[in-house]
Amino acid sequence: MIDVVNLTDKFSRISDHWDPKIIAQVNDYHLKIAKIRGEFIWHSHPETDEVFLVVDGELTIHLREGDLTLNPGELCVIPKGVEHKPAAESECQILMVEPAGTLNTGDAGGEMTKEDTAWI
Amino acid sequence: MIDVVNLTDKFSRISDHWDPKIIAQVNDYHLKIAKIRGEFIWHSHPETDEVFLVVDGELTIHLREGDLTLNPGELCVIPKGVEHKPAAESECQILMVEPAGTLNTGDAGGEMTKEDTAWI
Repeated sequence: MIDVVNLTDKFSRISDHWDPKIIAQVNDYHLKIAKIRGEFIWHSHPETDEVFLVVDGELTIHLREGDLTLNPGELCVIPKGVEHKPAAESECQILMVEPAGTLNTGDAGGEMTKEDTAWI
Repeated sequence: MIDVVNLTDKFSRISDHWDPKIIAQVNDYHLKIAKIRGEFIWHSHPETDEVFLVVDGELTIHLREGDLTLNPGELCVIPKGVEHKPAAESECQILMVEPAGTLNTGDAGGEMTKEDTAWI
């Protein structure tokens, strides 16, 4: 039988910030969720666009051209190659849509990179 | 500047049922929203999986093996080739993720087909 994925349930199983987890696969794309708080790092994804949808809290996406602020029920698409730095003053829950294998830190690498994103 | 898409705003612009509208593109995939009420038709998408996420209301997805019920904040992936028939007793708001060009009626065709899904 096909699984029904409940976002509240999935988020309740995440404790760490900036540690995306896969919740669904559609062809070769993944839907991932993450809890975030504080500042991430500047990076871009040279090969892919990236969707951010806010489920709870307030997400800031710093861009070189200015900042975006997203509240629950709001989404944006960061085009491939566009530098961005996600941030959240208080804990924020986000849903992302991107090709399987997309690294959270894109072309920047570093200690916040999660090489093997796990399912939850 | 990158657009912030507000789901409530986008849904408020939709009046017809079973008439999906595109709200975002990530590479060659579209995020679409639709208001639905009543019964759709049995169909499958031989070439692609399809994500249904419920934003408001209650969605029933009839499957040959049984029914799925999804409430707000719940999603499922209908695998390619799997026959399904969406339905909702009361008006329901859904978000879909699928490759650009995916027809709402899949391989079934018929009068409910929307050949040219528009942006909203």
